[in-house]
Order: sequence, then C-alpha cells, then structure tokens
Amino acid sequence: DNRFDLTEHSHRRYNPLTGEWVQVSPHRSKRPWQGQVEKTGADHRPAFDATCYLCPGNVRANGEVNPTYTATYSFTNDFAALVSDVPQGEFQDGDLLLARSEAGICRVICFSPRHDLTIAEMDTDGIRRVVDLWVDEYTQLSCQENIRYIQIFENKGTVMGCSNPHPHGQIWAQESIPVEPGKKQQHQEAYYQRKGTTLLSDYWQLEVKRAERIIFENEHFVALVPFWAVWPFETMIIPKRAMARITDMTDAERQAFADAYRRLATRYDNLFEVSFPYSAGIHQAPSDGTPHSAWHWHMVFYPPLLRSATVKKFMVGYEMLANPQRDITPEFSAARLRDLPETHYKQTLL
Amino acid sequence: DNRFDLTEHSHRRYNPLTGEWVQVSPHRSKRPWQGQVEKTGADHRPAFDATCYLCPGNVRANGEVNPTYTATYSFTNDFAALVSDVPQGEFQDGDLLLARSEAGICRVICFSPRHDLTIAEMDTDGIRRVVDLWVDEYTQLSCQENIRYIQIFENKGTVMGCSNPHPHGQIWAQESIPVEPGKKQQHQEAYYQRKGTTLLSDYWQLEVKRAERIIFENEHFVALVPFWAVWPFETMIIPKRAMARITDMTDAERQAFADAYRRLATRYDNLFEVSFPYSAGIHQAPSDGTPHSAWHWHMVFYPPLLRSATVKKFMVGYEMLANPQRDITPEFSAARLRDLPETHYKQTLL
Ligand SMILES: O=P(O)(O)O[C@H]1O[C@H](CO)[C@@H](O)[C@H](O)[C@H]1O
Ligand SMILES: O=P(O)(O)O[C@H]1O[C@H](CO)[C@@H](O)[C@H](O)[C@H]1O
Repeated sequence: DNRFDLTEHSHRRYNPLTGEWVQVSPHRSKRPWQGQVEKTGADHRPAFDATCYLCPGNVRANGEVNPTYTATYSFTNDFAALVSDVPQGEFQDGDLLLARSEAGICRVICFSPRHDLTIAEMDTDGIRRVVDLWVDEYTQLSCQENIRYIQIFENKGTVMGCSNPHPHGQIWAQESIPVEPGKKQQHQEAYYQRKGTTLLSDYWQLEVKRAERIIFENEHFVALVPFWAVWPFETMIIPKRAMARITDMTDAERQAFADAYRRLATRYDNLFEVSFPYSAGIHQAPSDGTPHSAWHWHMVFYPPLLRSATVKKFMVGYEMLANPQRDITPEFSAARLRDLPETHYKQTLL
Repeated sequence: DNRFDLTEHSHRRYNPLTGEWVQVSPHRSKRPWQGQVEKTGADHRPAFDATCYLCPGNVRANGEVNPTYTATYSFTNDFAALVSDVPQGEFQDGDLLLARSEAGICRVICFSPRHDLTIAEMDTDGIRRVVDLWVDEYTQLSCQENIRYIQIFENKGTVMGCSNPHPHGQIWAQESIPVEPGKKQQHQEAYYQRKGTTLLSDYWQLEVKRAERIIFENEHFVALVPFWAVWPFETMIIPKRAMARITDMTDAERQAFADAYRRLATRYDNLFEVSFPYSAGIHQAPSDGTPHSAWHWHMVFYPPLLRSATVKKFMVGYEMLANPQRDITPEFSAARLRDLPETHYKQTLL
C-alpha cells in the first residue's frame, strides 16, 4: 500500500494557533543515540534545606528574610530581567536598527514550603492554592502601570535551566505583547471573526470526538497532545468554557484545573519514573483593558525528554535554522501518556 | 542621568529579517549561577578513530564502507528525517487539523578525513574545499524532484546534540520552505520592493559605519554580531555583494568566505579556550527556479555558551513561551569577539 499515512510518512503539520508548521518524521524513531545523555541521580531532597533561598525563614541574596509561609509565597525577583524603573525611550538608526525601552515586573512564586515536593507530588488542594495565587498575582499585576501582558511559567529540572529544585515558578509581566502570545492572538482573532466561536472551543470538541490525542478530561478541562505538538511529549490543558483569562474561572473551574494539572504532572513523572523536566506556562489574553473575546486561555507543557530519562530531543541545527522537527507522532505520545496511572510512582513504591 | 540607554536599560530590539523582537536585559548579567554546568573535558581525539562511522575506510550503520577520502566526503544520511520516497498526500479534518506529506533528502558532509579537527583548526584551503562541496551539493540537490529549499547546517559539540565529534555538517533538502527562511524571505522581499536594494546590503554598510558590532571584515565579507542577536555570542557572516545563493560566488568570493569562516571559528574557540559549541548554517534563496533578487544569503552562528565554557544560556520558560531574551548586549559580545586573536589558542600553547 502506497498511500500517504500520518503514522509512517514524513509530513508537515499546521499549527492554527501560531500559523507555523512542524516537520514530523515518524520513520526516524529508530535512530540510535550515541550523543549526550542527561544525569538523572536519585532525587532525595530534605523537606527543608537551610541553604535554599526559597525555603521558609531563610535569607535571600538581597538580605531579605522569607516569612515562615505554610502554603504559597511570592516575591519580586532579586535578579529580574524586567524592572519597572526603566526610563521610557526609543532608539532608531536608519531603517534597520530599532529598539524600545521595556518596563516590567518579575515575580517568583513558591508552590509549597516543602523543599522536596513538585506539582506531581502535591495534592490537589495544595495545587489549588497555587492556582489561586496565580489569579491573585494576575489581578494585582494587571493594575500596575505599563503592564499589558503577564506570562506565568515554570522551568522544572536542571536540564530546563532551573537552578533551585524548590518547587517554584515565575511570572514576567511587561509593557508589550511578546512574540509567541502575539502570534496566538492574531490567529485566534482571525478565527473568531470568521466563525464567532473561539478556535480552542472548536478544537477541544473535535479532539474529544477523535479521542486519539486525548490524555484525559474532567468536567471543566481537557488534557491532550496537540495535533501540531513540537516537543516529543508536549501537551495542553484547555478549559472547556471559552475564557480569555484565568481570572474568569469559577470556584469549580479552579478546582478542576488543579485536578487536571496534578494528574498530568503525575503521568509525566510516571512516564520514565523520574521527576519529569519541562517548561510549562499559561497563554492568556493581554491585561490591556479590553475584553479579548477571541482569546481562549490554555496551559502548555514543553518537556525536553524523548526516549528515556536520559535521552532528550535536541532542538538545534535544522530546528533553530529552519523548522521545528519531531520524530515520534503526537498520537503515539498521547497513547503513552493516556495509558499511565495517575498515582505517583513513588507512592506505588511505598 | 535618567535617559534611556541601550547599554543599561531593559529594552526590546526589532529583527527586520524576521519581523520579531528580542528582549534585552543588560542589567541582568550579574545574576549568580547555581544551575546546571556543562562538562568540558580535555579534547584529545586521535586523527583516526576505528570506531567512528565518519572516518575514512570505516563501515557505517547500514553496512556501507566509507571511501578512504583525503579532503571532504558526503553521503545520504542513514537515519534521514526527510526521505525522497514519500507518497504525496494531504490530511485534513475540519478546519483545524491539516498535514501534508513532505519529501526530502538528508546529506552528511564530512569536512575533513581528520577525526581530531574542527573548522577552527583547519586551514583556509581545507575550509575552501568544504565551501566547494556545499556549492556542488546545492547544485545537485536543486536538480532533484520536489526539492525547493536546501538547509546547510552544522551542530558542533555534544551540548548541541552532536553525537559524533568527527568534523561534519548536514544538509536537509525538502519540498517546502521552512518557517525560519520563510520569515526572512517575506521581510527581504518587502524591503526590496520598497528600496530596490537588498536589506542586508544596506545593513552591512550601516554596520561598517557604526563599527561597534563588527568583528572583522575582508574584501568580500563582513562578520558581525547583529543588532537583534538572540544568543549571547550570535554572529553573522554577510557577503558584501548581494547574492541570492552560495552558487553565485566567484572564485575569489569562495576563498574570502573560507577565510572569514576560519577566522570567526578560531575567535570562538579562543573566547573561552574551549572547542566552542554552536549550531551554524546558511540561509539562502529557495531552489525553486526563480531568481529571488531580494534574497541576500548569509551564514548564522547560534552558540549556547553565556559566561564561560561551562555556563550556557537556557532558552526555556519565558523564552519558549513568550519571547527570546538575552542578558549581555550584542555590542558587548562584539567587543569581546573583536578583541580576540585569530591564531588558535592550541597553536599558541605549542
Ligand atoms: O542528525 P543528528 O546529528 O543525528 O541529530 C541532531 O541534529 C538534528 C538536526 O538538527 C536534530 O533533529 C537532532 O535532534 C540532533 O540530535
Ligand atoms: O530566572 P532563572 O530561573 O534564574 O533563569 C531561568 O529562566 C529564565 C526565564 O525562562 C531564563 O531566561 C534563564 O536562562 C533560565 O536559566
């Protein structure tokens, strides 16, 4: 049989949220790997670490003392990439050199006082408190001067540039809409103009019918591997109700989001029985005073691992210069994640 | 003084080739680093390695035997991401799921028979033979069916996903124009329509006047850190004459390109006195039978190192989800690279 088949033949897939394509090479998954392998190392951390600048009661780099917090804790980053006291200005030299000042605020969000936990090992109530804190931070940051976009994210694992294993994420809030959310805004708006529904409402409903890329769902959220996933085990959590921002969630939706977040993080840890590294975060409407009905907020997870706890996908050469590329299909990855238990492997070992 | 200053204040810079922005945080370079450090390890490789599948005379994974080549050698990748015998087809499901078959050819390009060399340690004549091979490969690949874009690149170093230290690069040739060259094409065409000159002709001439981002130049090429550089030590080699493709070079230009390539690679190794990792490659016009007068080919280098041989820049969280971000300014990086000698540090040590 020589018909084009997504599970076998090299192809490109379109990402309707960004307007960009990903190169998929399903036949390439048998490639041997002799390159760099990552360290894993048993991950036995104490519940409290006296040298950790995020643990309760410890002193930070700038001399401040953390409160003895018992749930979550947030503060402005001591080494912020974006700061609020930037003089406004523009630099232009001819037609080709253009720069503009960019003010912003960088926040650090501690998920738990426990140094030894991650989202995957926290309970739903603990995660619910993280969700509540994100909503509060979003609300407060959006009232600050010159803040029009708020990026909530987490770098998890040393391989993702995280320098402290204490469970924490970050929020970078700024004047301009960054490149990636800018693309998603443009494509969501065009879709909304054409159809009168949000792109992601139509998308999650189609995926629930197709089933093959769904990992799980609960009453208010769907977790899936998007058809256009770039990273081997890239996923999305999409709210079923069209909402521009996380601040629009009802109490029940916040709880269901915490449930979906915990279940997905646990499945990730169970995949290779390792604390699964990723960068994750929330794409949502700008905080610029307009409603943005076309925006449907969602959370994305970009994990680097490909084949095992030690072999990652390198987004290098061709990917940096030309086009994102993946070896296994999104449907294969979804099946792997769907078949995993939702009890954390460390608990099963007890 | 509270005026906006590119060397001190957080800002965004515009990339006129892609239409995208980079976030620059000059004040952040003092951030302490407690995260992952890279291995360096003394790099004492033999001139010939019996277990290397790229060395002359050795057997490859598919059983083929490499010729006992004495200059360069190329062959079709045994584990190619793009293959030519893909059945043509399209997959469409509703408005949101779209995929198309993608045929292509992946080539491996051995730069030298010597297992222990890199471009930085090869002489200009040896590099000239690599340039000649690229030109020949481009010419031959562009005659193949269904080939419209040809990406020449190299992943150097284990940190860049390179699994064999034998000096080599790759060429991926395919049906479609990938995302990144597609953006550059769009912006170069718009500029050419407006101005009647190529964007990069105007750009390199402006940079030579400004001097601060120039690393060096020779008769036919300029090496510089672009104003909109994303990676800490990102650079470009730009031909002074507007040419769409590397096949347009005169004999003297090929020689001058080899000279510029060697000098830049050597400066990179001298920066941290280590074999400097990077992904590098050539952006040029599609091989689709049209002249593309707006295209001005150029070579780009994306090196991951930030502060030393062991501390790299992680493009994670904020960068993946929102916007590329850098800590040191392009002008600072250009000054560092400009001040380095062009004799390789290993030769100086002899
Ligand atoms: O083809 P190689 O050298 O085996 O593989 C390397 O380069 C490719 C092209 O940039 C990437 O897709 C791979 O992730 C990387 O490991
Ligand atoms: O802010 P951190 O955790 O020190 O740093 C980490 O996350 C940032 C935001 O994604 C990146 O810019 C850094 O490269 C990374 O190491």
